[in-house]
Amino acid sequence: MLKKLIAELIGTFWLVLGGCGSAVISAAFPDVGIGLLGVAFAFGLTVVTMAYSIGHISGCHLNPAVTLGLWSGGRFPASEVIPYIIAQVLGGIAGAYVLYCIASGQPGFDLAGGLASNGYGDHSPGGYNLISAFLSEFVMTFMFLIVILGATHKLATPANAGLAIGLALTLIHLISIPVTNTSVNPARSTGPAVLVGDWALSQLWLFWVAPLLGALIAGWVYNWLSPNPDD
Amino acid sequence: MLKKLIAELIGTFWLVLGGCGSAVISAAFPDVGIGLLGVAFAFGLTVVTMAYSIGHISGCHLNPAVTLGLWSGGRFPASEVIPYIIAQVLGGIAGAYVLYCIASGQPGFDLAGGLASNGYGDHSPGGYNLISAFLSEFVMTFMFLIVILGATHKLATPANAGLAIGLALTLIHLISIPVTNTSVNPARSTGPAVLVGDWALSQLWLFWVAPLLGALIAGWVYNWLSPNPDD
Amino acid sequence: MLKKLIAELIGTFWLVLGGCGSAVISAAFPDVGIGLLGVAFAFGLTVVTMAYSIGHISGCHLNPAVTLGLWSGGRFPASEVIPYIIAQVLGGIAGAYVLYCIASGQPGFDLAGGLASNGYGDHSPGGYNLISAFLSEFVMTFMFLIVILGATHKLATPANAGLAIGLALTLIHLISIPVTNTSVNPARSTGPAVLVGDWALSQLWLFWVAPLLGALIAGWVYNWLSPNPDD
Amino acid sequence: MLKKLIAELIGTFWLVLGGCGSAVISAAFPDVGIGLLGVAFAFGLTVVTMAYSIGHISGCHLNPAVTLGLWSGGRFPASEVIPYIIAQVLGGIAGAYVLYCIASGQPGFDLAGGLASNGYGDHSPGGYNLISAFLSEFVMTFMFLIVILGATHKLATPANAGLAIGLALTLIHLISIPVTNTSVNPARSTGPAVLVGDWALSQLWLFWVAPLLGALIAGWVYNWLSPNPDD
Repeated sequence: MLKKLIAELIGTFWLVLGGCGSAVISAAFPDVGIGLLGVAFAFGLTVVTMAYSIGHISGCHLNPAVTLGLWSGGRFPASEVIPYIIAQVLGGIAGAYVLYCIASGQPGFDLAGGLASNGYGDHSPGGYNLISAFLSEFVMTFMFLIVILGATHKLATPANAGLAIGLALTLIHLISIPVTNTSVNPARSTGPAVLVGDWALSQLWLFWVAPLLGALIAGWVYNWLSPNPDD
Repeated sequence: MLKKLIAELIGTFWLVLGGCGSAVISAAFPDVGIGLLGVAFAFGLTVVTMAYSIGHISGCHLNPAVTLGLWSGGRFPASEVIPYIIAQVLGGIAGAYVLYCIASGQPGFDLAGGLASNGYGDHSPGGYNLISAFLSEFVMTFMFLIVILGATHKLATPANAGLAIGLALTLIHLISIPVTNTSVNPARSTGPAVLVGDWALSQLWLFWVAPLLGALIAGWVYNWLSPNPDD
Repeated sequence: MLKKLIAELIGTFWLVLGGCGSAVISAAFPDVGIGLLGVAFAFGLTVVTMAYSIGHISGCHLNPAVTLGLWSGGRFPASEVIPYIIAQVLGGIAGAYVLYCIASGQPGFDLAGGLASNGYGDHSPGGYNLISAFLSEFVMTFMFLIVILGATHKLATPANAGLAIGLALTLIHLISIPVTNTSVNPARSTGPAVLVGDWALSQLWLFWVAPLLGALIAGWVYNWLSPNPDD
Repeated sequence: MLKKLIAELIGTFWLVLGGCGSAVISAAFPDVGIGLLGVAFAFGLTVVTMAYSIGHISGCHLNPAVTLGLWSGGRFPASEVIPYIIAQVLGGIAGAYVLYCIASGQPGFDLAGGLASNGYGDHSPGGYNLISAFLSEFVMTFMFLIVILGATHKLATPANAGLAIGLALTLIHLISIPVTNTSVNPARSTGPAVLVGDWALSQLWLFWVAPLLGALIAGWVYNWLSPNPDD
């Protein structure tokens, strides 16, 4: 169990360091910056790379919403939900902290830039309001879990599940970074928010409630649509 | 059968929400927008992600042209063609509606922007005329079906079919977004057109006729080129 | 044999229409154009999509240099080399012609833009001289064949060969479009050159000689490095 | 053994020619340049393409840090570490030299541009200081080895290991090019530094020490986390 939790912690550390790191360090680099397209690939590739390297250890959730959705879809034991979520949140905070250490080595770095925290209203990259933000996080997480539950289904092609799931996260970012900076993952939101504090902490509730709700419902829907053969 | 239709509906919902959503929300975001390259990846990844998650339920067509081409290629029963197409169109409209709900939460949003509807002539992104638009949609859908029929052939590598087919859609968008905003999928065209109305509805015929024609012929051609062993 | 040749023709048609088409139609589209990165992905994805759909019919060479290199590596019979090359060249010309038909439907289109023909010196996108152009085409084709011969080797992972080979073509374009517009494929060069004529035809020799030479040598080198178990 | 070393030499040649080549030739090409996103894909695709073509010959390390990390993780014999590293460094220098030959065929080329050498402080693309640079190279290489050791683990999905590992290198570049131009590979750093000399040579130590240290520790950590069944 300890090794599973360490794996989840390392994986979520990588998701936040890689995803938020590419946003903070490389997205707006003058002239040749990677833009939101590069950030979308970075988030997705953190999952692809971890799925193939720690998947056989912990299942590679890296995300409290994923853990909850797998539970509601009948694929994960209730007893491990809370420990997994704690490991993920700790990993997310560690990833944000190491990102802060690297990023602050550039002259002129300012933590008030937000460290890629998630937000709505005045803190949405495109100024989207609370309702759009909630709807976006809810629908994106719902569909993320549909992909996860489907791609890891026994009748699917498990060898490519890590690719499909990681690229789903890329797709979700391609759609919704302007709305909320894209969370669909409470641990990813909590990491930078803890360091930035202020508005990032006070808006954090949405990035727990909407993803968890979307994931919970997706688990039930997918389980009706295609129950696992031997559950 | 109901579960198959629900799966097609959810998948086409995702194709329109993800593909058109990335175009409307993220393509032209100031300074760091994802551009047509990002939109091309988004459309392709909707198919990749659905292929691996609902493929084993419904076959993951998400597109009336695909359903028709699989029928003309001898891979799909005639009796299910119409129900599949209805489910796909409903899913496309639902995807466009949820996109509208999210996008309209940004101050200054205007539905007259087109919600990524397909068009030709004055409504082609690059001002391409009717003949170019028809030829492009016809050839692109023809080749899309060649890829689909080939990649799902028994002598091919079925495990990677979802990847090849999704990336074919990405490729098609890389070539032809400036010509018609790229359809090759009547359900994807119908979704936004229903909400936008006006020119989008009056030009909609082309995005049913050209893709369906291209798909129909591709089914016959591929079946001659490489018939399935036990058809 | 006829079906093999038709498959090669269709595949090379797609390579030229897709690769050169993305360059002509989408690369420099105002504000949201796909750039050389998008063109590089387009060329690579034509190969990925064809590899998984016609690979089991013709082997999916789509390129006289590939056919020659597979022969010099002991993987392809001498008797089929010339027919394959003829089919590929015809396909390349057909692809360039359909691209011309689509592209000319835009007001202001001018064939003198080059239709993505390959060139050196004054006709190199970045003004690279003849020696750089020859060296680049030689080395890039050499390495392309190393990847092809390796990825299709019996001890490799054949299921992912199409992906590795297509992405090798993407990589080659990421490096060398500014040098020669990137050929590594005489059929791809011949297609647009036939329509553009003039300098494109008079510089065409280099895009036959350098790729064929690189491929020939790669076949011998790889066969020494890792002979096929039962050749 | 000779064939293994030649394979490592060719592969590292390709990594430097492809990765640094895309940076020098294509990254900042006017208007349609591939940017850091394209460079990140190029580096990753050199590994993807080589993994599937020479993986069965030499294991495809292409990187002294990878060789060391595989040794500390108990996956590679000590006796071959030094020969592998020598072959990799020679390949890296050869790659940089061929890149120089191609790039210098463009009027106005200046070697003082750096040939994509790695650096910190005044020679960091974004002006990051020594501590950030060291931390970044250390953490990125640590995580790179976690991915490599995990994706090639017997309980993982070996067929997709080449994809996961190559895309890990893409991800690492998406995060950290602005910090150090990204090394995580002493051979890749040594190639251009030998040609550029000057500051590139005097800062080279960091790009040996930090990656080797990160790799060494990753080997131990991963081996504790998930030992190979029959080691």
